[in-house]
Amino acid sequence: MESRLAPHQPPAATEGGVHDPRVGPQAAEPALAFRRWIEGDGAEGMVLRAGRSRQGVAVAMAHTVTTTGDAPVLATSIRDQGALRHTVRTTLAPGAVLTLVKSVAYAADKDVDGAPGDDDALSSAAVAALAQATAIGLPALRQARTQALQDFWLSSDLAIEGAPDLERAVRFNLFQLLQGAGRDGLTSVGAKGQSGEGYEGHYFWDAEIFALPVLVYTRPAVARAVLEYRHRTLDGARTHARLMGHRKGALYPWRTIGGAECSAYFPAGSAQYHINADIAHAVRQYMDASGDDDFLVRHGAEILFETARLWLDMGHYNPRRGGRFCIHEVTGPDEYTAMVDNNLYTNAMAQAHLEYAAEVAARLGRERPDDLARIAGAIGLGAEEPEGWRQAAEAMYLPYDEASGIHPQDDSFLDKKPWDFAGTPADHHPLLMHYHPLVLYRHQVCKQADAVLAFCLLPHRFEAEAVRRSFAFYEAVTVHDSTLSAGVFALLAARLGLMDKALAYFKDTALVDLHDLHRNTGHGLHMAAMAGSWMALVQGFAGMHALGGTLRFAPTLPPGWTGYRFRLDFQGNRVEVAVGCDAATTYRLLAGPGLALSHHGQVAHLTPATPEQTLEGIRHAAL
Amino acid sequence: MESRLAPHQPPAATEGGVHDPRVGPQAAEPALAFRRWIEGDGAEGMVLRAGRSRQGVAVAMAHTVTTTGDAPVLATSIRDQGALRHTVRTTLAPGAVLTLVKSVAYAADKDVDGAPGDDDALSSAAVAALAQATAIGLPALRQARTQALQDFWLSSDLAIEGAPDLERAVRFNLFQLLQGAGRDGLTSVGAKGQSGEGYEGHYFWDAEIFALPVLVYTRPAVARAVLEYRHRTLDGARTHARLMGHRKGALYPWRTIGGAECSAYFPAGSAQYHINADIAHAVRQYMDASGDDDFLVRHGAEILFETARLWLDMGHYNPRRGGRFCIHEVTGPDEYTAMVDNNLYTNAMAQAHLEYAAEVAARLGRERPDDLARIAGAIGLGAEEPEGWRQAAEAMYLPYDEASGIHPQDDSFLDKKPWDFAGTPADHHPLLMHYHPLVLYRHQVCKQADAVLAFCLLPHRFEAEAVRRSFAFYEAVTVHDSTLSAGVFALLAARLGLMDKALAYFKDTALVDLHDLHRNTGHGLHMAAMAGSWMALVQGFAGMHALGGTLRFAPTLPPGWTGYRFRLDFQGNRVEVAVGCDAATTYRLLAGPGLALSHHGQVAHLTPATPEQTLEGIRHAAL
Repeated sequence: MESRLAPHQPPAATEGGVHDPRVGPQAAEPALAFRRWIEGDGAEGMVLRAGRSRQGVAVAMAHTVTTTGDAPVLATSIRDQGALRHTVRTTLAPGAVLTLVKSVAYAADKDVDGAPGDDDALSSAAVAALAQATAIGLPALRQARTQALQDFWLSSDLAIEGAPDLERAVRFNLFQLLQGAGRDGLTSVGAKGQSGEGYEGHYFWDAEIFALPVLVYTRPAVARAVLEYRHRTLDGARTHARLMGHRKGALYPWRTIGGAECSAYFPAGSAQYHINADIAHAVRQYMDASGDDDFLVRHGAEILFETARLWLDMGHYNPRRGGRFCIHEVTGPDEYTAMVDNNLYTNAMAQAHLEYAAEVAARLGRERPDDLARIAGAIGLGAEEPEGWRQAAEAMYLPYDEASGIHPQDDSFLDKKPWDFAGTPADHHPLLMHYHPLVLYRHQVCKQADAVLAFCLLPHRFEAEAVRRSFAFYEAVTVHDSTLSAGVFALLAARLGLMDKALAYFKDTALVDLHDLHRNTGHGLHMAAMAGSWMALVQGFAGMHALGGTLRFAPTLPPGWTGYRFRLDFQGNRVEVAVGCDAATTYRLLAGPGLALSHHGQVAHLTPATPEQTLEGIRHAAL
Repeated sequence: MESRLAPHQPPAATEGGVHDPRVGPQAAEPALAFRRWIEGDGAEGMVLRAGRSRQGVAVAMAHTVTTTGDAPVLATSIRDQGALRHTVRTTLAPGAVLTLVKSVAYAADKDVDGAPGDDDALSSAAVAALAQATAIGLPALRQARTQALQDFWLSSDLAIEGAPDLERAVRFNLFQLLQGAGRDGLTSVGAKGQSGEGYEGHYFWDAEIFALPVLVYTRPAVARAVLEYRHRTLDGARTHARLMGHRKGALYPWRTIGGAECSAYFPAGSAQYHINADIAHAVRQYMDASGDDDFLVRHGAEILFETARLWLDMGHYNPRRGGRFCIHEVTGPDEYTAMVDNNLYTNAMAQAHLEYAAEVAARLGRERPDDLARIAGAIGLGAEEPEGWRQAAEAMYLPYDEASGIHPQDDSFLDKKPWDFAGTPADHHPLLMHYHPLVLYRHQVCKQADAVLAFCLLPHRFEAEAVRRSFAFYEAVTVHDSTLSAGVFALLAARLGLMDKALAYFKDTALVDLHDLHRNTGHGLHMAAMAGSWMALVQGFAGMHALGGTLRFAPTLPPGWTGYRFRLDFQGNRVEVAVGCDAATTYRLLAGPGLALSHHGQVAHLTPATPEQTLEGIRHAAL
């Protein structure tokens, strides 16, 4: 029996000899270099550090072997070129049992006080963590973990009647999301969680726009921790803003772990300014669901204000567009266009961001003036700035094409050359692996939801028929080469009552990794797509949204399902929503002081005294 | 006395610790690595090769020392870590003379037949070249060179009366251009000629748009050789086109020596599709001036056809613009914008390119059908393709803004945020060294002439008053951070009769290196700016243009000058043009069968019998 510990080698990033840029650069050297051995106190292991950043990790392991056999057990550890091999040898008679308990503990720089780069301290931290785990013992560890998962399912369990494979898939996705989400305020949700090397473990916007909604409504404390990570890295975002030419404010990096911009191609990296609005949207969503003013005054407001400032530097009041506020040279979520003018998603999200930041500043000014003064002092916020945000929001230009009645993705999108979908070979997908970016940029083809996502996140901003026409337009030009896309299309299709389409997209996002639909689950799980399955179920089929602080539903039932249910935490309440095939939805207060909610526009009150309401009507959701 | 031969180290590319991207990447290793020594037959030297491309160069040297003194002369050669040091030691009495003749010969891969990478063959070629030079001897070599330069000045000499410093500057520039231009059909004109390491010796579009006009009208044989270089690298351009997603045709690389694209940032590299039209423009200019059908059927037509094909793949007939032919996601000459739609320069130059390619195909079909059939067969040209070029040219969309009456640089330029010129610190120029590209891209600021260059090259295409208004607009937003800019502004200002402006810009381009106006002449001479001074004089002040095959002039006289003259080779004739302060221009046929030319629209005939005509009128040139 052999156990081997060695610096990890990334998986092959080539398919048929073609490099897949989504995996990461093909570095000649392993990212982590051996530094020293760990030994003693029954532990063995090693300390490793990254070549450039000098970030370190220590791993310590211990083995306990018991046997019902008589023969002696020989354990040896061999160190070989930076790898550690632990071998256990014995002879077992038939029926005899050997039990090996392997304990492994990790420590990273963030677990160590004092001088960065101290290998000894890192080693000691890993050994101490191993000793602590050993002292607690396996049964107690298992029990604690079981309890934590039971807690999670109490707040998040769901069922889909009539589609057991999809039920299992969404549950699997929720479990993976929980596993992949940072909980310590020092980490966020990687594109692949902790499950693979794809995107090199980096955090992107999907942490806030996809993973966070699930956490907000199922694990609010984790949602707060993930947002605290953004506050903790505000200095990195300020540095990034200075690099991008802004004299004040903060621009969150497009891809990062430690807070610095790690994208190597700025047209699809730093140019995605929408990340600022995405994080602001997440802050608002968390605040609406939690009312957590402690978070707001400690972390949220500073994030909102520092990021809102950038829009005024980015955009301008364009006299050629009737003085509307226009934003040029940004990249929206759809990376098959880059550096465009007036990206609908960016402008609409920036508008919501500016509005909300001004609203928060006004409310804090009324309710917590000392906190506002402290925050404003720390970031040099002028008293007139929030009014500037409000004005820019009010004047924000949102592209709309009178001739076609749709919302163009940006100023030039409708003018582009149509993509030859019929002439694209089946094996030329995903397009990014087969066409130069310039080819994609000059054609009318979308990698993923962009305007469609804006319609989902800001339903009150757009007129229903324009959304319906736009959905049809974008559906025809979107290739869904990003796994982020299907869930968003499912969500909007469900809200538009396009149930067959909604269900098909829902399956694409729910089964993305269980069925390896994009044939790259080996690079890691698609956290955002997994989250997208929950969003499509809850925010799509059940039509939930809660911006503004009121929980609203407009339930629908996809074809073939006989019912579904899910749970939510909202403003200190735990609610179960059960949609049935008898055209009724039952809302049940499981815990908390009670709340009012809206069902297809009808208000229902759940209280501890009358915790359950069944309301008729499963119809197509109005936007 | 010591002479040292060593692999060259590039000059420092930093100023105040900031890297200047125009110099080249800061490679940790020298570009050329030592391979072997050369010795024997009185020669010594070395063979070097580039690390990646394996391109090699051999350098051999010999020294002849004579002295009038009595003391012995000691010569030693020391090899030290890839460097060769030749030292000559003697003792000279007062008045005694020591003469050292150092002969150096180079050989590169192109000088060697047979296996690439053969160090011995390269060494032999350098030694043979050295022996040949030694056999010819210094006096004969000097005489040959003197003769060559006398020949050059016979065709290109010029004078500026009343501005001796400018006269000297333009002569200096012409000499440097001659020195820097490839003459062997294997090389072109580097951005810095042979004079420095800036831009790593690469060839760009300015070889054709700036250097070539000077060569066309002063050294037609060199102009042909430079165009032959493009024909010789057509395969590289075809490969580049495939990489950029085009199934047929050729796209010349943005920067290259051997024919492959060497630009590392495609938004300001491969996206500059105008290079195809620039080369086509140069072919046309050469053809109009030379009538060299031998060149056309051997080289020119294939270049024209293969490059013309790309426009049909790039653009499309846009129903939203009345079916006009639109071209998206290209970068024009002004690199302070990137990946724009309907760049005026690109569209107008592509239109001229398509028109001319169709015209050449039609003429060859009539006059040289066998040649056309051979070329078409070689590149698989369909009989219907030229008609497609003609149609696209006819439908080409050229941006024009009714409200302002100017030609916008592209679809979005007028909508961009104005640049804060007043708030830009003086030490923040050139902007590219102080602002992130995204900042530049989203503002209304131009690095250099772009639309203005289109007005210069295609004067017949634009209405005079729109050009006048556009000139004023672009002048206000252009920072001239490229040395290519001043000459173009000088040219157009002169044509518009804005003589003070024209003269100021002319000084900027004429003195760019003699006065080190951009403080980076240390990186090499600015070949295009030098050529720009000739263009501004001849094509600006004298209003010369010859597209279509007729030599036309519209002379003007800048303030302070009492006259100027220059010479041209045109269709086998050599003509001197002398503009005087007495409001008359004298055209003199120095050689050749004679020609008709136009002076402010008045036709004059020069013949061997009546070789001279003096025509009245120095007035503002009409466009």
